Amino acid sequence: MATVPLLDRDAASPAAQAVFDDIKATRNVPDVNNFWKALAHDPATLKRVWEGLKQIMAPGALDPLTKEMIYIAVSATNGCSYCAHSHAAAARRSGMTPEMYAELLAVVGMANQTNALVNALQVPVDPAFLAPGTSAES
Amino acid sequence: MATVPLLDRDAASPAAQAVFDDIKATRNVPDVNNFWKALAHDPATLKRVWEGLKQIMAPGALDPLTKEMIYIAVSATNGCSYCAHSHAAAARRSGMTPEMYAELLAVVGMANQTNALVNALQVPVDPAFLAPGTSAES
Amino acid sequence: MATVPLLDRDAASPAAQAVFDDIKATRNVPDVNNFWKALAHDPATLKRVWEGLKQIMAPGALDPLTKEMIYIAVSATNGCSYCAHSHAAAARRSGMTPEMYAELLAVVGMANQTNALVNALQVPVDPAFLAPGTSAES
Amino acid sequence: MATVPLLDRDAASPAAQAVFDDIKATRNVPDVNNFWKALAHDPATLKRVWEGLKQIMAPGALDPLTKEMIYIAVSATNGCSYCAHSHAAAARRSGMTPEMYAELLAVVGMANQTNALVNALQVPVDPAFLAPGTSAES
Amino acid sequence: MATVPLLDRDAASPAAQAVFDDIKATRNVPDVNNFWKALAHDPATLKRVWEGLKQIMAPGALDPLTKEMIYIAVSATNGCSYCAHSHAAAARRSGMTPEMYAELLAVVGMANQTNALVNALQVPVDPAFLAPGTSAES
Amino acid sequence: MATVPLLDRDAASPAAQAVFDDIKATRNVPDVNNFWKALAHDPATLKRVWEGLKQIMAPGALDPLTKEMIYIAVSATNGCSYCAHSHAAAARRSGMTPEMYAELLAVVGMANQTNALVNALQVPVDPAFLAPGTSAES
Repeated sequence: MATVPLLDRDAASPAAQAVFDDIKATRNVPDVNNFWKALAHDPATLKRVWEGLKQIMAPGALDPLTKEMIYIAVSATNGCSYCAHSHAAAARRSGMTPEMYAELLAVVGMANQTNALVNALQVPVDPAFLAPGTSAES
Repeated sequence: MATVPLLDRDAASPAAQAVFDDIKATRNVPDVNNFWKALAHDPATLKRVWEGLKQIMAPGALDPLTKEMIYIAVSATNGCSYCAHSHAAAARRSGMTPEMYAELLAVVGMANQTNALVNALQVPVDPAFLAPGTSAES
Repeated sequence: MATVPLLDRDAASPAAQAVFDDIKATRNVPDVNNFWKALAHDPATLKRVWEGLKQIMAPGALDPLTKEMIYIAVSATNGCSYCAHSHAAAARRSGMTPEMYAELLAVVGMANQTNALVNALQVPVDPAFLAPGTSAES
Repeated sequence: MATVPLLDRDAASPAAQAVFDDIKATRNVPDVNNFWKALAHDPATLKRVWEGLKQIMAPGALDPLTKEMIYIAVSATNGCSYCAHSHAAAARRSGMTPEMYAELLAVVGMANQTNALVNALQVPVDPAFLAPGTSAES
Repeated sequence: MATVPLLDRDAASPAAQAVFDDIKATRNVPDVNNFWKALAHDPATLKRVWEGLKQIMAPGALDPLTKEMIYIAVSATNGCSYCAHSHAAAARRSGMTPEMYAELLAVVGMANQTNALVNALQVPVDPAFLAPGTSAES
Repeated sequence: MATVPLLDRDAASPAAQAVFDDIKATRNVPDVNNFWKALAHDPATLKRVWEGLKQIMAPGALDPLTKEMIYIAVSATNGCSYCAHSHAAAARRSGMTPEMYAELLAVVGMANQTNALVNALQVPVDPAFLAPGTSAES
């Protein structure tokens, strides 16, 4: 259950309806997902998150599938159940094969393991990791 | 500072030295990073983590650069400073351009934002997200 | 399902019953929530957590509604489903309007986004942020 | 040290300079903080994050100080060092007294404690927490 | 529901079946848990995780019950529902009494509280905490 | 640097001084750690956290060393640098050998790995994990 009612298009404000319509047109889907129906109580956030997401997830230096897989990695680390499902579905639609999903999860699991080891051991950063133009002082 | 002394090759056990040597040969580097020097107190974990990492990060269904970027995504979400530096450096060596890094971080930031919104709102999973062969019951 | 049976008042120890009674009297409610029924297996923790919570959530330099909203912010960040629900309900009882809840979640989402960007980029602290009486050295 | 060089205004692109100028004008400050100098490598994200932040942190149903305190709560939970400093500084500028800061942290600490207990015990949501218009089914 | 179908032994590959059989023999159980059935889509990860777990959870400098309790502590902090249940069950089988479980959770809750306070306050490390052979510089 | 000045005994209020004195007497140490000096701005929280900690960390169903190791596990998972150092030091004083520390970290790393895999895969809880007296319904 959600902490707010999910708003279908008919129950949403005109501002929210406009965002719903853009989501449906952009994604070529008949309805928006529950996330947007929950955000519809706040048309300003609905619009800001959708427009940010549309900008970010478009093809660019990274392809959309890579971006969806990064989304899965973050969602697994945050323990977000809805996000684990929704981005696995989106990645499959973008061409993620079962083999790619398996490798993705293997990396995510390993990264959480080594992150925990590093955080426990408080390993100091190797100077060789510094990017050109940065310094250890700042 | 680390919570344990970093062990250089000379101070490490033969079992740890063997892992150090494999890391240096596999990566073609003159020395291992601080992470491995901190793990060297526990040769069994040093060996297990290294062999797992070597297996996982090899090219497969995903290329090594994609894997390094996933590692950055997890490390940012976990707030692991060393990991943010070490995997940014590794990704750069694997060909990550500044434009790719920028897009990666944009996705990571957005994913953490929407994860938090979903976790706050406890949005129920859309049935359409279910993978073929799974069911809502289990 | 919980990892322990929820203890109703009749099944609880006298020490736990005394805490239950104080919760009901303080909050003017007919029964305690599931959280307390799960903690009742450990009367010392039940008592310590309740007394701490009662002390902390009382009006002081911050009003109770602000405190409940802070609780929601932490719960969303930790992905605690029960907590997201229970503190949304408590905040509503303390006067949180839908507009306030929407703004709260917008801030929580944005904070998780910028936290992730900062953790990825490992931005050094600006000297201007230092509080009077602190120094960069310690 | 950051994972990218911090860009001062002179080194930034015209698009980033325009955002810097808006930040300085909006906040009436002589220079932007390190966070913006690190984001300046990606003018699109710089602009999107700044404009989102400006929209969200403006007075509305919640006052700016409450919003800064929520930001501190999230930052503490995520372990973001820079964010803990920058938002403590911002909250002080917005009128947060030492007493308010102390109470805020007391709530943040308690919330992280009870979140962990709930997540360990997997306490089921009380039906009474459901918001009007939601149901246990969805 | 899982994001992949759970694979029973008959549906799993020979490589996965071999791991299933080793789990059943090692633990003397008639079937493997859902975690392994979900991992079975990726026999390499299934094998690597199981062999790592078998090595780590065997008696050594720490007894198996202590290890299961550490697992509960991490799982509660990460908000992993399945893990909170599975490791509570495993710890009970290894001899964890209700009193031990209660004390464990009390420590986990307190640790999350003080972690959050420290992360908010950004307390500098006391020099006395340094392990022999480490230094504040690295 | 901390977000507040660290208060030495002379600068602290009488209420905070009383807590400092109890810490020093209980632990038989000449001075309190930085954590307490940072909390001293809020004597109520200082007292509540210290008294809770004193109660929880005393020998009981679990010995003090086991409790310190659980504290390390939580601190590593939360990425709390100060806590990773302070509880490693405390555990060493309570008798943690290098071998025990190594095994502890191996478990913490593995737990974070499997937590992430489970959270990504959203594995449903096995009915066999249910504790006696609980049910799948609540």
